Amino acid sequence: MAALRGGTRAVEGRFQANGGGGGMAPSSRLLAAHREAKPRSNHSAAPWKLPRRRAGTMPLWRVAVFASVALNVATLALLLHHYATSPPPPHNHHDTGLTLSSDAVHRRARTASSMAPSTGKPAVTPDSVINLDHGDPTMFEAFWRETGDAAELVIPGWQTMSYFSDVTNVCWFLEPELDRQVRRLHRVVGNAAVDGYHVLVGTGSTQLFMAALYALAPDSSSSAAGGDAGDEPISVVSTAPYYSSYPAVTDFLRSGLFRWAGDADTFKGDSYIELVCSPNNPDGTIREAVLDSKTSNGKTVHDLAYYWPQYTPITKRAAHDIMLFTVSKSTGHAGTRIGWALVKDRAIARKMTKFVELNTIGVSKDSQMRAAKVLAAVSDGYERRPEQTKETMTTHPPPPPRLFDFGRRKMVERWSMLRAAAAASGIFSLPEETSGFCNFTKETAATNPAFAWLRCDREDVEDCAGFLRGHKILTRSGAQFGADARYVRVSMLDRDDAFDIFVNRLSSLK
Amino acid sequence: MAALRGGTRAVEGRFQANGGGGGMAPSSRLLAAHREAKPRSNHSAAPWKLPRRRAGTMPLWRVAVFASVALNVATLALLLHHYATSPPPPHNHHDTGLTLSSDAVHRRARTASSMAPSTGKPAVTPDSVINLDHGDPTMFEAFWRETGDAAELVIPGWQTMSYFSDVTNVCWFLEPELDRQVRRLHRVVGNAAVDGYHVLVGTGSTQLFMAALYALAPDSSSSAAGGDAGDEPISVVSTAPYYSSYPAVTDFLRSGLFRWAGDADTFKGDSYIELVCSPNNPDGTIREAVLDSKTSNGKTVHDLAYYWPQYTPITKRAAHDIMLFTVSKSTGHAGTRIGWALVKDRAIARKMTKFVELNTIGVSKDSQMRAAKVLAAVSDGYERRPEQTKETMTTHPPPPPRLFDFGRRKMVERWSMLRAAAAASGIFSLPEETSGFCNFTKETAATNPAFAWLRCDREDVEDCAGFLRGHKILTRSGAQFGADARYVRVSMLDRDDAFDIFVNRLSSLK
Repeated sequence: MAALRGGTRAVEGRFQANGGGGGMAPSSRLLAAHREAKPRSNHSAAPWKLPRRRAGTMPLWRVAVFASVALNVATLALLLHHYATSPPPPHNHHDTGLTLSSDAVHRRARTASSMAPSTGKPAVTPDSVINLDHGDPTMFEAFWRETGDAAELVIPGWQTMSYFSDVTNVCWFLEPELDRQVRRLHRVVGNAAVDGYHVLVGTGSTQLFMAALYALAPDSSSSAAGGDAGDEPISVVSTAPYYSSYPAVTDFLRSGLFRWAGDADTFKGDSYIELVCSPNNPDGTIREAVLDSKTSNGKTVHDLAYYWPQYTPITKRAAHDIMLFTVSKSTGHAGTRIGWALVKDRAIARKMTKFVELNTIGVSKDSQMRAAKVLAAVSDGYERRPEQTKETMTTHPPPPPRLFDFGRRKMVERWSMLRAAAAASGIFSLPEETSGFCNFTKETAATNPAFAWLRCDREDVEDCAGFLRGHKILTRSGAQFGADARYVRVSMLDRDDAFDIFVNRLSSLK
Repeated sequence: MAALRGGTRAVEGRFQANGGGGGMAPSSRLLAAHREAKPRSNHSAAPWKLPRRRAGTMPLWRVAVFASVALNVATLALLLHHYATSPPPPHNHHDTGLTLSSDAVHRRARTASSMAPSTGKPAVTPDSVINLDHGDPTMFEAFWRETGDAAELVIPGWQTMSYFSDVTNVCWFLEPELDRQVRRLHRVVGNAAVDGYHVLVGTGSTQLFMAALYALAPDSSSSAAGGDAGDEPISVVSTAPYYSSYPAVTDFLRSGLFRWAGDADTFKGDSYIELVCSPNNPDGTIREAVLDSKTSNGKTVHDLAYYWPQYTPITKRAAHDIMLFTVSKSTGHAGTRIGWALVKDRAIARKMTKFVELNTIGVSKDSQMRAAKVLAAVSDGYERRPEQTKETMTTHPPPPPRLFDFGRRKMVERWSMLRAAAAASGIFSLPEETSGFCNFTKETAATNPAFAWLRCDREDVEDCAGFLRGHKILTRSGAQFGADARYVRVSMLDRDDAFDIFVNRLSSLK
C-alpha cells in the first residue's frame, strides 16, 4: 500500500505542476486536476469573467489538447504503476465472491492522501480486545468498496445550504430525492407499504423514535406553554428482551410526556405506547404487538430496522401506522446517521416533524443525499432503471452489485461459523434457526439476525458479559435488555477480521 | 440554461455510448465517464479480478488512448457549446466583486442533470411573499459558487460507515479532521480560545444547546433510573430580547431536568443556567452574563453563533466555559446541520457527548467532513497552508476567495440599503450602529448583525409582524423574543433577490 501511495503521489505531482491546484487537497486530487486543467488556463487569460472566453476559438482548442496530453501522461503512469504492483484487498478475508476492483484501490489511495476521514474502530490483531457491544455495521464496507461511482457522492461547496428542502412537504427538511429513493426501495423489496404514507427523515432512527414518543404522547403540542401540567406521562413499553436503548432514550431527559414502563407482557393499563421491534433487537424473533390497541387507548410504533432480506425472509408487506427504518442496518451506513419513518397519519407526521425541528432544525442534507444515492444503488441492483429516458439510455454496462445477495451470503456464512464455534465450545447456546418463504427472493430462507443472542450454559457463569470480557470479547449483557445476565447480545455485523477472531476465541472457551 | 443542459447532455450521451455507465446518474456524470473509461474495458476482459490485469501492457495502452480520444471529443463539444451560449449568473444581482466562474456554471449544469438536490426556498418575484422569518443564510451561496473544488467534497460509497470516529476522544463520534479545522479557524480569526478546550460536534448548535442543559442540570447522570426524583428542574434564563428557540427547545419535552424561567434580568434564585448570546439574536447587541456565577450556583452557556468578522468586530478572544458555534451562521451552510461546542471541563464534555449519543447516536460524518472542508477553505483564504508538506507543495495558484471579506461587504451594503429604506418609509426605526476595533481585520468596523431588530413606530400598529405580513413580508414577532410586538426580527442573510424586494417594499410603507 505504501508503494502504491508513493506512486500515486508522483502522478499527482505531475498534474499539479501542470494545472496548479490550491487550497485544501480535495478528496480526489487526480480528478480535480482533470477538472481544473481546462478552466484554469482560461482564468489566467481572463480571470473571473465569462465574456472574455468568447474572444476566439483557438485558445479553447489549445486547452483541450493540453488537457488531453495531461490525461495521456497520467493514465499511462497510473496503468504502468498498476502493472508493477498488486496490493492485497484488506478487510476481506472470506470468499464472498467479491474482490477489490482497481478502481476502489485507486480511490482509497487518493483519498488517504488528502482530507483524512475516520476509519471506525482500530484494526484488530489476534490478541486484541474484540468490541461487539455495538451493532457497528462495518461488514458492509467490503460491498461498497465494489460499487465504484454508483454510490459515490460529489457535493459542490454551494449545494443545499438552506434549511429548507421542500416547503410544500409536511417534512419540510426532507430532500425530495431521498423521499423518492426510500419509496422506490420499499417497492423493490416489498417489505413495507409506502402508498398513502408520509416519509419523514431523522438523524438516525433513534431521533425518529423520540419523535414518535413526542407525537403520540397526549398534549405534546401544548408542552411549550409550561411544565406544570397535571397529566401523567404516557407509559412506554416493549416485550422483553427489548432493545436496550428504548428505556435509556425514553427516560434520559425525564420527560413529563412519556416514561419507560418496562415489559409489555406484564403491563397493566389503558394508555401506552408499545414498541414492536421486528426482527427483534436483541434476539432476532419476529414480533407482533402484544397489547391490543383496538380495545385500549394504546398506540404502536414498529421499529423495522432489521426487516431486510439479508436478515430475514420478507414474508409480508408491513403496513403499520408508524414504521421506522435506518440506513445503518439496511445498507451499513451507520456513520451517515439517516433514518426514516413511514407514517400514515398526517397530524402525527406533523408532530414528529416538529420534534426534529425543535431538536436539530432538520437533518443533514449531505447525508440525506448520500443515503439517497446509496439506496438508489441498492435498487439499481435489482431493478434496472425503471424511469429510463432518452438521456439516461446507455449500452449494456456490467450489472451493479447486489447488496442483499452479499448481505445474505455473509450472514449465512457467519451464522454457520458461529454455530460451529458454539458447538465446539460446548458451553454456549443460540436461538434455533427459523425459516420462511421470502417474497423478495422467491425462495425459502433462514433468519440470520444481525445480533446473536448468546447464552452461556456454564452453571458457574451468571454474568456472561463479564465472563466474555475476561476473554477480551465485549458484548452487551442481557440485563440491559430486561433479560437474564446469562445472555449477551453480540454484533454479527463487524468486519471479517474481528468476527473471525471472535469465533475462534469463542470456540476455545470451555 | 436549458440550452446549456441540452448541450451537456449530448456530450454525456457520447460518453455513455463509448464507456458505458449504469445505475443512478452520478452528480458529475462527465467526470464519472472519465473515471470509468479505463477500468471498464479491463472488466470486460477479466471481470472482478486483479491478476488478469497484469497479463499484458498493450490493452492498457489502448484504453488510455481511447480515453484520451473520448476526452478530446467531449472537451471540444463542451468548449464549443460555451462559445455559443452565455447564461447569466442567477441570484447574484449586487456588485460584490464576484461573478460566476465557468467552472461553477459547468458543475451546476452537470449536477442538475443527475441527482437533484434541493435548492431551498422557491425563487421569488416582485409580487412574492418574502419569508425572512428564519435566518436562512443563503446569502453565502454566491460566495461558495466561486470557490470551485476548494469546498467540494467527494464521498466514496464505503467511507465513514462506522458509528465511531475516534474511540480515544471524549467525543468519540467527532471526525478528527473537523476537530483540526475548527481549532485552526478559531486561531486564524482569534474569536475564541481553543487550547485546553474539548471540541464537541452536534447536529447544529441547537442539539449542543440541549446537550449543555442536560450536562449542567443536577443529577442528569442518574436520570435513566426513573422520573420520580424530587429535584426541581433547574431554571434556564436569558436576558430579553432572547432567541425565540431558547424557551421552545428548553420546554418542548417538559424535562424534569431543566425548565425555562424567562428573562435573566428579573430572575431571582441561586441555581440557574444563563444563556448569553453575543452578538445577540435578535438585536445584535454585544452581551455579557448578567447573573454572577461566582457568587451563586449558576452556570453559563455562551452562544457565539454570530461572533464572526462579517457581523461584528472581533474585539477579544472569548474563553468561556461552554461556547457554541455553528456553520449555519459562520459559513452559511445551514443545511449541513453542523455545530460545535468548545468546552473546558472534561466531565461536562462527557455529559454533553452522552446527550448526543442518546439523542442521535452521534452526528453525520458526511456533514462533518463537509464542514471540515468548508472551514479549511475559509482558513486557506487567510492563511496559506501552514502545514505545507512536500506532497501538497504546488506552484502558485490564484488566491482562494475570502469569506469574511465577502460577508462583511455584503452586510455593510445590506445594512446601508435597509437604513435607507427605513428612512424613506419614515415609520420604522433600527438599532443604532456601533463599531469597534477588529483584531482580525486590524481596522475599526461597524457591527452588521445577521438580523435586523426592526421597530414599527406607527402609533396604530401594535403588531408589527402582522402589519408586515399584510404586505407579504414574513418576519418573527418581538413577542416571541420576550419583547414588545412592535418589534420584529428580520433575517439579513437571504438571497439578493429576496432582500432587494424586501427593502424596496419596506421603503414604500407609510
